[in-house]
Amino acid sequence: MSPSNLMSRADLDFLLHDWLRVSELTGRERYADHSRETIDAVLDLSAELAEKYFAPHNRASDLTEPRLVGEDVELIPEIGEALRRFADADLVGAAMDAEVGGMQLPYTAYLACMAWFYAANIGTAGYPLLTTGNANLLLTHGSEEQIERYVRPMISGRFTGTMCLSEPQAGSNLADITTRAEPQPDGTYRLFGQKMWISGGEHQMAENIVHLVLAKVPGSPAGTRGISLFVVPKFLVNEDGSLGERNDVVVTGLNHKMGFRGTVNTAPTLGQGLHTPGGQPGAVGYVVGEENTGLKKMFTMMNEARLGVGLGATALGYTGYLKSLDYARGRPQGRPTGADPASPQVMLTGHADVRRMLLAQKSYVEGALALGLYCARLVDDEKSGSPEEAAAAKTVLDVLTPIAKSWPSQWCLKANELAIQVLGGAGYTIDYDVEQHYRDNRLNPIHEGTHGIQGQDLLGRKVLAGGGAGLAALTERITETCDRAAADGPGSELAELAALLRPRVTRLIEVTTALAEVGASDPEAFLADATEYLEATGHIVIAWMWLEQLLALGSRVDEAAEGSDAFAAGKLQAARYFLRRELPIVDAKLDLLASGDRTTLDMRDDWF
Amino acid sequence: MSPSNLMSRADLDFLLHDWLRVSELTGRERYADHSRETIDAVLDLSAELAEKYFAPHNRASDLTEPRLVGEDVELIPEIGEALRRFADADLVGAAMDAEVGGMQLPYTAYLACMAWFYAANIGTAGYPLLTTGNANLLLTHGSEEQIERYVRPMISGRFTGTMCLSEPQAGSNLADITTRAEPQPDGTYRLFGQKMWISGGEHQMAENIVHLVLAKVPGSPAGTRGISLFVVPKFLVNEDGSLGERNDVVVTGLNHKMGFRGTVNTAPTLGQGLHTPGGQPGAVGYVVGEENTGLKKMFTMMNEARLGVGLGATALGYTGYLKSLDYARGRPQGRPTGADPASPQVMLTGHADVRRMLLAQKSYVEGALALGLYCARLVDDEKSGSPEEAAAAKTVLDVLTPIAKSWPSQWCLKANELAIQVLGGAGYTIDYDVEQHYRDNRLNPIHEGTHGIQGQDLLGRKVLAGGGAGLAALTERITETCDRAAADGPGSELAELAALLRPRVTRLIEVTTALAEVGASDPEAFLADATEYLEATGHIVIAWMWLEQLLALGSRVDEAAEGSDAFAAGKLQAARYFLRRELPIVDAKLDLLASGDRTTLDMRDDWF
Repeated sequence: MSPSNLMSRADLDFLLHDWLRVSELTGRERYADHSRETIDAVLDLSAELAEKYFAPHNRASDLTEPRLVGEDVELIPEIGEALRRFADADLVGAAMDAEVGGMQLPYTAYLACMAWFYAANIGTAGYPLLTTGNANLLLTHGSEEQIERYVRPMISGRFTGTMCLSEPQAGSNLADITTRAEPQPDGTYRLFGQKMWISGGEHQMAENIVHLVLAKVPGSPAGTRGISLFVVPKFLVNEDGSLGERNDVVVTGLNHKMGFRGTVNTAPTLGQGLHTPGGQPGAVGYVVGEENTGLKKMFTMMNEARLGVGLGATALGYTGYLKSLDYARGRPQGRPTGADPASPQVMLTGHADVRRMLLAQKSYVEGALALGLYCARLVDDEKSGSPEEAAAAKTVLDVLTPIAKSWPSQWCLKANELAIQVLGGAGYTIDYDVEQHYRDNRLNPIHEGTHGIQGQDLLGRKVLAGGGAGLAALTERITETCDRAAADGPGSELAELAALLRPRVTRLIEVTTALAEVGASDPEAFLADATEYLEATGHIVIAWMWLEQLLALGSRVDEAAEGSDAFAAGKLQAARYFLRRELPIVDAKLDLLASGDRTTLDMRDDWF
Repeated sequence: MSPSNLMSRADLDFLLHDWLRVSELTGRERYADHSRETIDAVLDLSAELAEKYFAPHNRASDLTEPRLVGEDVELIPEIGEALRRFADADLVGAAMDAEVGGMQLPYTAYLACMAWFYAANIGTAGYPLLTTGNANLLLTHGSEEQIERYVRPMISGRFTGTMCLSEPQAGSNLADITTRAEPQPDGTYRLFGQKMWISGGEHQMAENIVHLVLAKVPGSPAGTRGISLFVVPKFLVNEDGSLGERNDVVVTGLNHKMGFRGTVNTAPTLGQGLHTPGGQPGAVGYVVGEENTGLKKMFTMMNEARLGVGLGATALGYTGYLKSLDYARGRPQGRPTGADPASPQVMLTGHADVRRMLLAQKSYVEGALALGLYCARLVDDEKSGSPEEAAAAKTVLDVLTPIAKSWPSQWCLKANELAIQVLGGAGYTIDYDVEQHYRDNRLNPIHEGTHGIQGQDLLGRKVLAGGGAGLAALTERITETCDRAAADGPGSELAELAALLRPRVTRLIEVTTALAEVGASDPEAFLADATEYLEATGHIVIAWMWLEQLLALGSRVDEAAEGSDAFAAGKLQAARYFLRRELPIVDAKLDLLASGDRTTLDMRDDWF
């Protein structure tokens, strides 16, 4: 497989440099040690490592599932090798502060690097995704001691990290977790309970595993306000950093999944009595910050993880697109409608319906990649911009996060479905990668907050936050883009496409306002169709991303229209595809939301 | 697992009896030996066999793939046992003529029976699907001798059948097949070539396998007009029906699929020289009918197979729906928006977004089942009605076949995607069936003519056939249904729903007429968006099916509105869901078709 089948470097360069001007970030203090050259070098290295150490065992990870042997989990050794290479290249801490051993790379460049690894092998790349999220949470909320003991070894690759939220009886609803943390005289806690769906929860690829665990201290408030966050290491860590006793957090079962198999998914039990560190029962835990502030802290990690999940979904869609394109270009089959039956066969790309399926994929995956990197750029503004820039970036990022998680999870899965279809029967076999990408990608609308939860988050919290500041900030940016496109002059391609987007933004604002009024009196009706709201907003945002890309092409759009600039012509055609052929589905969703339809609300359990 | 988790007998009874009045068919000569009682008895038996012999090994078939051992294929023994039970119950020939050993059951009732088997185990049920299709083709086009030698043993379960169309270099485009059939002095042929994607192409579960093979006789016309059809048995059959020499059709490879694994998929080679029947090279074949008429004959089987594929997709969607409903009813999680956090958790069905996902599934799978059975009823009219009834039924059935194949393949796959989502993380594991149904169902938009091919068939051939008689016949029936619904009186629920459907039918006719004009001068532009046309027409047809179901409920709709008749209330709510919330996507597709958009047509290979 050629490297070009994982991601498109040309597209990444265009997005990072021509559009998001990532090099300009190096003028800011935080990124002063970087330059276009260092960014390019890390991208080169990521592409090389992804190609050499991640892609080759992608199928092997799928065929050889993790196995539970006693208390241990056995993975194929290629996963460990890949993670060592990744850590040795300093990529775990690529975006972290230099003072803790990080590379302090702009987050935008870091996410672009991660796309290569996700495209190459999402199962293996799942481990660093969790580890960096865990480390970033502790860097933000942990004590200096916790950073020293747990974060530095994660950055160097000696430890990996997990996030332990769900329990068998509490998945989407964390208010009902029952894992309890009993305070000890020495300030530590002893944890007892059962966790579920814990990715990377056990393996032999690192010296230690740092679990971040949500639990309740007896007597704490009911609901989510009584949740605390604990560090629960697999092995206790001594003051000098050496490993101590085995802690009583033990995996008691594995979940066998339809895809994403390289990332072991576990059901760990805390305080079952298999180990008694210090001679006492319970898993030793260390509270992060104050008691009863756990869920909010966990969201630091969750928000980052949601961008990561969205980017992972995007990368799976992207590589599936490139692979189906490659197949379509090399597979002769049939003739265009109306052609002489005695004429030679054309390649699959010679059929309009195949070009439709490829163009749909291109519009989804490149649109989703643009959104992911745009969000990453907002993270950089939060981290390195002026206080005003940082605040503005945070407002928009908060609104975009549920979309950046859910839209790629839905539409890059759809892209994988189309990739299979382009290959036909071949796409349904394990001889090609696309069926695995489809299975792997099906996880993404489920984990890190289901699709439905993202809708509740967007409509129930984000767009109306700060008196509607979230939606206002987002729609102002979209409108500003439309203004710039319209400035290209009446009758121009850009102005025409902007004219498709603008009225839908106006309508979104109207519908949101009307929904907010419903919410004042009937919160259930308000959020009943939050998923439809999420999907409508998502399509508007991706259409915006396409307009942004055309604007970034500048005068190349004119050459694109003539076909002399293939890259620009592809972008233009994909933008046309998305705005003309995909964006209109928004209308039916906004109409539905405006209608106050009660079909699902009124449905009764006994009527099914 | 309870039987109710495979299919809903209450729904089948409603569709078969209250709506399609299948018992009335028994007043016709062909079905005079049947009655409501015999039909019910076959349905009971099918449900029982499906439950007892098909469902239990569904997961085992998935986990233990068919293996090629020498020239043989090994399957798990449960498949053979299930097929024996199926044949012993006379189900292979259930809808066939009594004079060849069939049960002469109405085809509508037969398809309803098959739904149970598809829902229980699509991989195992794939063998009888192919065998009956093969047998029906030979019953229509074969000689008496061919019927005696091959069809009777297939009906009794001693032989199974296949259809061999595709080749490695020719899948969707059969004009380019290269398997050649050399005429012999004794009237037989010797075949040489390589076939691909042949389901059921080798196994040890039957004494013999009857392959129906498309091939070209040297010197025949180019393209599809030069294709002939041959019977190529695995073992030659002697005049007395006993088995003779091993024929030279040998499986040389298996395709390993992401799902549908119980149905072995093979790459057979003809005339490779592994066997030399009669001491001569080549696989012995017997022409069916005349040379160069093979493709048309194969379509007899394909049309039947397409209804079968659509019904299989429907059954997978249906059982996935029932299983996700069952899970949602028993899984406590969270509380409705706005509820007191200290109140007890509600079941998943207590959340509007979960009800949305369940109602979507219900509207897809019950709508698709109605369409499948409606088509089967048309088959019965073709077989048993007056010449006028038969001709009218054929005209509508021709138009509906690509929709009956493709719509369930698309939307019942979507239903399976939603079933996984209802279960959340659990749905992504192999502990539950829904992930397998999703993988199994992903084949259906590919085989028996891809989704794109169905679109070309519908727009390129069917709707405009006979000067537009196909579309006219279809839309007249839909309009007649709207008229009956509107007759319920202004302001009535039925009239309101009919008012959502009627303008879309009018628009479909207008758009079709406009497209036909394009077709006169530019056949490529005409068919460029045939898939969008297929999908728009499909949604209109399913909306029609929902209106038909409400009309069949009669006065129960009024009670439904009050909620006192749970079955009727469920139908009403699903109809509302489909017409209010799904049907509107048709508008964007029809707008697109009317716009003459050239985005995909103008896209160039080098722009991707």
